[in-house]
Amino acid sequence: LYIYKYHHSQPKMLGISPSTVSRALKDHPDISAKTKKSVNDLAKKLNYRPNAIALSLRSSKSYTIGVIIPELVHHFFSTVIAGIEDVAYKAGYNVIISQSNESYKRESINTHALLASRVDGLLASITKETEQFDHFKNILNNGIPLVFFDRICTELDTDYVVIDDFEGARLATEHLIQAGCKRIAHLSAPENLTIGKKRIAGYQAALKAYNLPIDKNLIIKCDTYDEAFVKTPQLLENQKDIDGIFAVNDSTAAGALISLKRNNYHVPQDVAIIGFSDGAISRMLDPQLSSVEQHGYEMGEIAAQLLLDRLEHRNSDESKKTKILKPNLIIRESSLKNKK
Amino acid sequence: LYIYKYHHSQPKMLGISPSTVSRALKDHPDISAKTKKSVNDLAKKLNYRPNAIALSLRSSKSYTIGVIIPELVHHFFSTVIAGIEDVAYKAGYNVIISQSNESYKRESINTHALLASRVDGLLASITKETEQFDHFKNILNNGIPLVFFDRICTELDTDYVVIDDFEGARLATEHLIQAGCKRIAHLSAPENLTIGKKRIAGYQAALKAYNLPIDKNLIIKCDTYDEAFVKTPQLLENQKDIDGIFAVNDSTAAGALISLKRNNYHVPQDVAIIGFSDGAISRMLDPQLSSVEQHGYEMGEIAAQLLLDRLEHRNSDESKKTKILKPNLIIRESSLKNKK
Repeated sequence: LYIYKYHHSQPKMLGISPSTVSRALKDHPDISAKTKKSVNDLAKKLNYRPNAIALSLRSSKSYTIGVIIPELVHHFFSTVIAGIEDVAYKAGYNVIISQSNESYKRESINTHALLASRVDGLLASITKETEQFDHFKNILNNGIPLVFFDRICTELDTDYVVIDDFEGARLATEHLIQAGCKRIAHLSAPENLTIGKKRIAGYQAALKAYNLPIDKNLIIKCDTYDEAFVKTPQLLENQKDIDGIFAVNDSTAAGALISLKRNNYHVPQDVAIIGFSDGAISRMLDPQLSSVEQHGYEMGEIAAQLLLDRLEHRNSDESKKTKILKPNLIIRESSLKNKK
Repeated sequence: LYIYKYHHSQPKMLGISPSTVSRALKDHPDISAKTKKSVNDLAKKLNYRPNAIALSLRSSKSYTIGVIIPELVHHFFSTVIAGIEDVAYKAGYNVIISQSNESYKRESINTHALLASRVDGLLASITKETEQFDHFKNILNNGIPLVFFDRICTELDTDYVVIDDFEGARLATEHLIQAGCKRIAHLSAPENLTIGKKRIAGYQAALKAYNLPIDKNLIIKCDTYDEAFVKTPQLLENQKDIDGIFAVNDSTAAGALISLKRNNYHVPQDVAIIGFSDGAISRMLDPQLSSVEQHGYEMGEIAAQLLLDRLEHRNSDESKKTKILKPNLIIRESSLKNKK
């Protein structure tokens, strides 16, 4: 049972390989101007639609990588994409992105759509709602390599790259303790995200190590700017003596910082604050935000490289690869309680 | 000369239309669970790859829209994409995005790649470098509808949607004049972008209307955070008595505001500042940033709607549609010179 027949006679007329033809039609920088011209002239003569030719010639490769991310508006994800794109374009691959908008349903639709768009491989970071993984299983069942980054799926056996979220959270919390905080709240991500779970664990480990009590009332699910803007002053009303906040990301830290300032708290003197991911925003706030560097660009580069290794069969080894990046503390004004 | 043969017998076996099969395979929300099950069962029985079936069944439609934007990291573009996606998903279309990173070469590669991925239509906003439009002409020559938004291409006859950039710039500059500024600088976008040209013209029109001189030394090409961070204090050193700044976008305004504060200028008392696009950052700065609301979400909705009208032939009229949105002033602390 065949779906369509490839028509291979034309490229042979030119004496060049199908993949060269495909890349010439895509105006790929590695193909010479002369080759591009002969390919395009032939295409014109035959009145072909370029996509149709490309499709017919490339046998199975599209030289396109699909990326599924939760939200474009997160500076962290834009940085990851920059890393992915730099590696991919250099290797002659295009990148197409699709946004789940933190919706499981859209993530599932997008996964199918990227498969239908004939991507060679997929890079993905899951939504806050995703608890079922059939759409990703379907990708693997179709023999399409899949690499997760940051928000990974632990139920499937794939390559992935993450930051050491436990260690990042532990470092951030330890820093607040060393800066003099005695009662530290954590604004956290949902626990179904591995990053949410690990960052809570890192926060708790630091408290334990310094013999500080773990108070469940000080851990609230709150991971967006708007949520933090509303919930942080309430938290400080309800729970007395909070003198430090570790927020699961920088937008959340920004919401906390700005709402506390408006409610006449002094940051860092009354409440020290540290975020996570070190986005562009951290240097724009006043006081400037301390944060944990999450190496988004490098994470993107590694994720793309893991995928390219699979696509180009450089891994004779079938076992899955795991890369864990080391977080760094970036200390700025918002957590330095002692310097007034 | 055929490229491939469609195989139409299987969907007929199910007694449902090819487009229903295609959507069922994509897990589209409008298709009933029962229909999805029978389609998927058949697909499994035939050991089909879903993309291959979808491809073979959909004749020419992929129900996918491509979007080409300069930079994901701009809050404005994320907002536009949110508007595009909401309209597209409601109508049963997927959205795939590709980022030019302000590079003409990548924009050109991406345009070809999206065509090869068989998008039904394209939405685009051009890079700062783009001065040739063959890649977009190629899209139109292939009969693929193309709609520009924000950064448009005036050389091609297509639908487009923009904000009234002239009026937005005029309003912003007039506001600074009414707030008491007498010598207003403009941090501008490159002039090859229509938005750059129009915002300069609006700035100049406001000065003229209030009998203020136009001084070319007060208009500098500067449209990113980092550039503004370096160039703004230099500008204020070199040109005496600048008491107001109109920046072409909010990131640039943020760079100006933060660097001036660090150089011991008071904003707005010494220098009033207004940005353009009213992104999330404007409320995070201290003082909060005045800006021109650019209606990114609405722009995305309209752009997607214009494209869907073409794709579904709701426009019997062949002439191109132009939508121009009205800008609004959002006045916050950074421009209110008189309130100290």
